[in-house]
Amino acid sequence: MLDRIARSLLGSPLPTSEEVHHRLSKIQALAIFSSDALSSVAYAPEEIMLVLVLGGTTLLRLSLPIALCITTLLAIVATSYYQTIHGYPSGGGAYIVAYDNLGTWSGLIAAAALLIDYVLTVAVSITAGVAAITSAFPNLQSLAIPIALFAIMLIAWGNLRGIRESGTLFSIPSYAFIGLTLLLIITGLTRLLTGSLIHTPIPAVTDSAQPLAIMLILRAFASGTTALTGVEAISNGVMAFKKPEADNAGKTLIAMAFLLALMFIGIVFLTNQFGIVPGEHETIVSTLGRTVLGNGLLYLLFQGATAMILFLAANTSFAGFPRLAAILAKDRFLPRQLASVGDRLVFSNGILVLAVLAAALVVGFGGNPHRLIPLYAVGVFLSFTLSQAGMVRLWSHRRGKGWVWKACINGLGAITTGIVLLVITSTKFILGAWIVVVLIPILVGILYTIKQHYLRVAEQLTLKDLIPKKWSNLARAKRHKVIVPLSGLHRGSLEALRFARSLSKDVNAVVVDIDPEDTARIKELWPRWGGDVKLTILDSPYRSTIQPLLSYLDVIDQHEPERGLAVVVLPQFIPAKWWHTLLHNQTAKLFKRVLLYRRDLAGADRVLIDVPYHLHH
Amino acid sequence: MLDRIARSLLGSPLPTSEEVHHRLSKIQALAIFSSDALSSVAYAPEEIMLVLVLGGTTLLRLSLPIALCITTLLAIVATSYYQTIHGYPSGGGAYIVAYDNLGTWSGLIAAAALLIDYVLTVAVSITAGVAAITSAFPNLQSLAIPIALFAIMLIAWGNLRGIRESGTLFSIPSYAFIGLTLLLIITGLTRLLTGSLIHTPIPAVTDSAQPLAIMLILRAFASGTTALTGVEAISNGVMAFKKPEADNAGKTLIAMAFLLALMFIGIVFLTNQFGIVPGEHETIVSTLGRTVLGNGLLYLLFQGATAMILFLAANTSFAGFPRLAAILAKDRFLPRQLASVGDRLVFSNGILVLAVLAAALVVGFGGNPHRLIPLYAVGVFLSFTLSQAGMVRLWSHRRGKGWVWKACINGLGAITTGIVLLVITSTKFILGAWIVVVLIPILVGILYTIKQHYLRVAEQLTLKDLIPKKWSNLARAKRHKVIVPLSGLHRGSLEALRFARSLSKDVNAVVVDIDPEDTARIKELWPRWGGDVKLTILDSPYRSTIQPLLSYLDVIDQHEPERGLAVVVLPQFIPAKWWHTLLHNQTAKLFKRVLLYRRDLAGADRVLIDVPYHLHH
Repeated sequence: MLDRIARSLLGSPLPTSEEVHHRLSKIQALAIFSSDALSSVAYAPEEIMLVLVLGGTTLLRLSLPIALCITTLLAIVATSYYQTIHGYPSGGGAYIVAYDNLGTWSGLIAAAALLIDYVLTVAVSITAGVAAITSAFPNLQSLAIPIALFAIMLIAWGNLRGIRESGTLFSIPSYAFIGLTLLLIITGLTRLLTGSLIHTPIPAVTDSAQPLAIMLILRAFASGTTALTGVEAISNGVMAFKKPEADNAGKTLIAMAFLLALMFIGIVFLTNQFGIVPGEHETIVSTLGRTVLGNGLLYLLFQGATAMILFLAANTSFAGFPRLAAILAKDRFLPRQLASVGDRLVFSNGILVLAVLAAALVVGFGGNPHRLIPLYAVGVFLSFTLSQAGMVRLWSHRRGKGWVWKACINGLGAITTGIVLLVITSTKFILGAWIVVVLIPILVGILYTIKQHYLRVAEQLTLKDLIPKKWSNLARAKRHKVIVPLSGLHRGSLEALRFARSLSKDVNAVVVDIDPEDTARIKELWPRWGGDVKLTILDSPYRSTIQPLLSYLDVIDQHEPERGLAVVVLPQFIPAKWWHTLLHNQTAKLFKRVLLYRRDLAGADRVLIDVPYHLHH
Repeated sequence: MLDRIARSLLGSPLPTSEEVHHRLSKIQALAIFSSDALSSVAYAPEEIMLVLVLGGTTLLRLSLPIALCITTLLAIVATSYYQTIHGYPSGGGAYIVAYDNLGTWSGLIAAAALLIDYVLTVAVSITAGVAAITSAFPNLQSLAIPIALFAIMLIAWGNLRGIRESGTLFSIPSYAFIGLTLLLIITGLTRLLTGSLIHTPIPAVTDSAQPLAIMLILRAFASGTTALTGVEAISNGVMAFKKPEADNAGKTLIAMAFLLALMFIGIVFLTNQFGIVPGEHETIVSTLGRTVLGNGLLYLLFQGATAMILFLAANTSFAGFPRLAAILAKDRFLPRQLASVGDRLVFSNGILVLAVLAAALVVGFGGNPHRLIPLYAVGVFLSFTLSQAGMVRLWSHRRGKGWVWKACINGLGAITTGIVLLVITSTKFILGAWIVVVLIPILVGILYTIKQHYLRVAEQLTLKDLIPKKWSNLARAKRHKVIVPLSGLHRGSLEALRFARSLSKDVNAVVVDIDPEDTARIKELWPRWGGDVKLTILDSPYRSTIQPLLSYLDVIDQHEPERGLAVVVLPQFIPAKWWHTLLHNQTAKLFKRVLLYRRDLAGADRVLIDVPYHLHH
């Protein structure tokens, strides 16, 4: 039944042969890979202003220069990644680049940072998307968390079903957002020049007596760097481009960087001009939209496109996280279940893990993107830095044409992003960055421990030093000692006794004396049904079934060290309906578990045999 | 580890031989068995007033006559139970009496009513006890539910450890409550007569326009009957008395009935004299206590004793519910797990079930005793009626000395309590009694269905029509077909192959081709390690491990119908730590479950063999 529900929700299983890799045109790829980066203009400008507003009107005027700094940073990062694309045409995520070039530990740090980032991308994008919706419909404010959770569920469900990265469909929200944002900027500028909307000075905001303006400016800058999240996406997905892959990916990256810079500066400039400051219940982008586009259909379309591209950005994490988790699992740093491909040809376990973690973050942080942002940029810039540093190492090893120049560019990228990382971590530390700073080493430790476990298991299971023996040398030579614990004499127990008897002539039936009446009945029936099987009755002063059985097995181990394997045959009747199991003792199940985890006194493993007997109704 | 925690919380297991039955003196028995009945004077008077207050001042004056009616009812019920004690000296609970004399269905209805009542006794007593505390310390009002839940947890814990019905210790709160209540009544009367406290008329309460005064009076009466809850306790526990059991129990019952009547009428009379009406944040008994005893230590002692006897009343349910559940489970009307005696010689499962249900009720009804009361009396009077009717039937069957007289007394009891039951159900129906009216038939249905299930299982397992066969006729004659599914070639799988080979010469190893690399490696190693065991590779287009294995087993069933049992041997490596299992595929576990629940095509059961291989770290 569960199976049928799963089928109708997720569709029927797909055969492995249906796995095909669509190649994307530049137009499609831009839409798909840049939703994460471009959508960040929906929250990054606001994050800058939210910090500056603490410093009063004077500082608020600095938002444009800060935005220009961030754009410069963007140019550096984009150039660096342009080189990564050409250096790793098969797709160079930060984990791969760092692992290949800087070694295991750097790779694991990058992996930890990326895993955290994917979760944060979902949480931030979804909550920011919901903020776009509640800005337009303030009545929905109180439903923000349920809406966000529903969106996560929907996206997870789509990914479990296996929505392919279907270029055309996914292009719509991206291009709608790009188009409407550019329209907003052009209209805004035109109306400003024609005087149909006039420059409004930033309203006087009282200085909340923060003595360290420079600290605030740095923190505003740190907040604004969230605009750069997602810039690395194209370099991860080079293989999805049409040939020549690297060239096409490179061009797409440049186009994306230009669009991002344009939209980011445009929005910051206009909010400055129209004196828009962050409000409690509306995002500044929404206020700007209403100011410039009027409170009509166009505004609603703009808000809708904003929400859609943000949800799309969350969706990209649902491709990235499971893929990275699967790579890590194949490298044995994560549980192998994360590497198994589900019925619908997707890494289902990774999708579920991501959905649960993101939902927990959304609830834990009250569905508020502003509270999540301080955690966000740390991981992003850590992986930027490691990835760029890895590229420097790559070029200096390869020493191809112009390697010094290439290494310098990536070196500049590494140094710049490294400094930014320090700025972010220090200015945002108490606001939440500390959580990531604590989490990353823990996660690295977990990844490493898991790998060690798998290595130890492999070592213990290896056939390397073994010499094959003839089967005839084996346990056969000795006779197996077979024990059949019984709780009563019925058809199920007869089946078990028969099978036991077919294994060995040395069969012992054992009854634990819990209820004297039951025991007496078994004793009475035994001569008729027991055949040549010995019956042993065990006392149980503490009414436990399992303890006397274990002690009995220990005694056998000591008295008959020369026997073959110790085999326990368990009769087990199988109810017709699963809920019937609630009406029967689970002692047999518990006994099985205890036996499996407990070796015999001679240190040998005990073989456990289930003989089922099916009930019909 | 879990085991060690359990030990330190609950103490070490007790041997069955330590089960002793303490006999109680009358003085001890009165304290233990009457806490439920006597403690009801803490809430019953208030329940009467809470209804009458709706009818204004006129009706409030009727509380004393109503209390006198209830006392008469008490006399009738107590006399009836006096006879039950002598008719069932081994302890006659309503279930036993009804089942023995009126048949299965009446027995089940009584059982359902009793089970519900035990849960309600805990919920009502605990919340009323907490109300006694919060009346003295109004600051604790907002913590009422947590305090109630903590009290339930504490009592459940005590019972899981097995607090014996230790007469002396448990007598303290009961006699403290009796003593302080009598002191309160005597002081109240004295101060009234000496004029140190003067008669205060009931304050004018506006009639809330309830046209049907008679309906209100009946409802007030119905609420007041909760004073009778627990009167049956002594007749359930006759065997706990010192010899002559029935005589001592009878005398104790009479003493209890007198004390209850005295305290009940005394409290109602005094509240009337001092014009006390129910308040929002204080019980009337607390107000009365403060008025008569002053706001000092004596008052606090009185409130403390009230809370303690109420908690003690809840504690009696923790003896009664598990005992009844165990009787029902032995009669196969409830899951047999409820009949098993735990480590500490108590019915642990019943205690846990009761604690969870009572806690759910407390939370569900907002920790408010007034909202629970309408549900309470229905079950009590239903079991009174059935039990008395059963006694009539008993006397008319036995026809001993004076049987007509005895039957008449119990008949009067049955008729009276039956009428009261109708009054309660009709006047309280919409206030909550409907819940119990709906629940009882559902519960009866569940009890009956469980019994049917056990009967069907017994029928299918019985050896009755079987004729014992010689072991030599059995499966041995045919050869077993042994299948060993492998996921890889390692020490664990070698162990399994060896054991399989020791069972039969017809062994087939099966590998599902999920990862072509893994499969190729197994094929390559097979000649060296596989011996004479055949290796079969199964395709898996949908990447499922289990489906191809099941299909393969089906094919074998069809092609080799003449073979012996189909035996599946599963290699299973056992990690050193339980949490390591999270890092390994659970496919084997799932496959085992599917195999157990699925018979082969010939309709025979498949035997399942676990060959464990232990990892060391």
